[in-house]
Amino acid sequence: MSSSNDIVVVKLGGSAGSDVALFCADVAELVKSGRRLVVVHGGSDRTNVLQERLGTPAQFITSPSGHTSRRTDRATLEIMQMAVRGGLNQLVVETLQARGVNAVGLSGVDGRLWVGARKEAVRSVENGRTRIIRDDFTGTVEQVNTALITMLLDAGYVPVLCPPGLSTGNEPINVDADRAAAKTAAALGAGQLLLLSNVAGLMRAFPDESTLIARIERANVEEAMNFAEGRMKKKVLGAGEALGGGVRRVVIGDARIERPISAALSGKGTVFE
Amino acid sequence: MSSSNDIVVVKLGGSAGSDVALFCADVAELVKSGRRLVVVHGGSDRTNVLQERLGTPAQFITSPSGHTSRRTDRATLEIMQMAVRGGLNQLVVETLQARGVNAVGLSGVDGRLWVGARKEAVRSVENGRTRIIRDDFTGTVEQVNTALITMLLDAGYVPVLCPPGLSTGNEPINVDADRAAAKTAAALGAGQLLLLSNVAGLMRAFPDESTLIARIERANVEEAMNFAEGRMKKKVLGAGEALGGGVRRVVIGDARIERPISAALSGKGTVFE
Repeated sequence: MSSSNDIVVVKLGGSAGSDVALFCADVAELVKSGRRLVVVHGGSDRTNVLQERLGTPAQFITSPSGHTSRRTDRATLEIMQMAVRGGLNQLVVETLQARGVNAVGLSGVDGRLWVGARKEAVRSVENGRTRIIRDDFTGTVEQVNTALITMLLDAGYVPVLCPPGLSTGNEPINVDADRAAAKTAAALGAGQLLLLSNVAGLMRAFPDESTLIARIERANVEEAMNFAEGRMKKKVLGAGEALGGGVRRVVIGDARIERPISAALSGKGTVFE
Repeated sequence: MSSSNDIVVVKLGGSAGSDVALFCADVAELVKSGRRLVVVHGGSDRTNVLQERLGTPAQFITSPSGHTSRRTDRATLEIMQMAVRGGLNQLVVETLQARGVNAVGLSGVDGRLWVGARKEAVRSVENGRTRIIRDDFTGTVEQVNTALITMLLDAGYVPVLCPPGLSTGNEPINVDADRAAAKTAAALGAGQLLLLSNVAGLMRAFPDESTLIARIERANVEEAMNFAEGRMKKKVLGAGEALGGGVRRVVIGDARIERPISAALSGKGTVFE
């Protein structure tokens, strides 16, 4: 169990808008009871929708190892900023404000919150041939501006963090929000990281919830990767990175239920420790 | 002249993207020389463009007194947040970061930065008849969270502020960025407010720059309204409000020139004091 002074980093999956209300209601209760929460979210689904509406549907790259990622040229990155920073982030902040929580939204660009190297060359397999893409803006968070986050927490604000990050060359870069949340939790010395989304947790045979894995020891995280599909891979990877970075406990939990954060804190979902 | 410890609030007009580079280069020089700057911007042109791209072009309301404003239903407000908060704000922050300035973007919703009453009924004249619109989300900034701004300034960040504001009922509301900048300058006890855009200043016979009014005494601000057209009306109104709120000096200056902020600080443009 964590002490109430511990920071808890909680990441909300961007897939279902209806989860925002449940999530924010729970943030409000927990903050009022003295919890120090840092919220992180992504927004890939909203980015897809806006790309579609603007007539430039999302494209995806398959790497030689079979990993799929969003093709993020500069135009896509700007659409992502609009959908995530201007859209979902401000909806979460507004919903928290309506619940009496003084939230402040920040992207990884603001205050150099999330800095990392940009991948200068991305390999894409197309029709069996590998192509090198040089104008992609993606990367991984390596440095977190913890001073900015703790300054806001200490002043009574709830930080609400979202992609993009900032490259070491000062370009916005698409970063995975699960892994950014993991890096943030480790950098802050957070006691717990909660990764909430529209699944109950990690399952041996997705989507059969009777195969939910309740507990994973730190030594078995790599093995757990075998059960992860699609976006779940990033969550398990993030869980391992957070534990490796000193976070005591990571929970992959369900965002679709009442009090989703409290449920994850009480161990509902897949607990890594 | 102001002392270098004075806060200067500088508002960049959202009309021309090319001005961002000149503006940010000047911010960087001034911050390095010890100036305490707070940046404010709008983004109505970007909102128009995004509304157009999304197939829902901007609509404007004419009030019984002949004043024109954007029709801001909830869908428009969300597009505005994407264009302004997700678009221009993050471009300014990124450009400042590339110049070595640690900028943090905030909308009026973040941290309850700009709070004001929402207009519950907006009167619109259409074909000679007055209609009452009740689902418009507009208002005027009445309270500024100066503690958040000064906390960021004191920690070495440059705050970059933009609409929307937050209503007292916790709804995002469209607020005029010139007047929000004026309110912010007054609330912060700023020494100067600079309102930069794509005009040289207030002219007796716009657009004839030879009729530029170099100086306006505080007592003559109302008279100056006679020369203001379109968006300039908000700037002159903001200038009067800032002076009334204790700001020593307001300059309506040109954003299209090299070192636009320094030029305004040195008195280029229309100076109110």
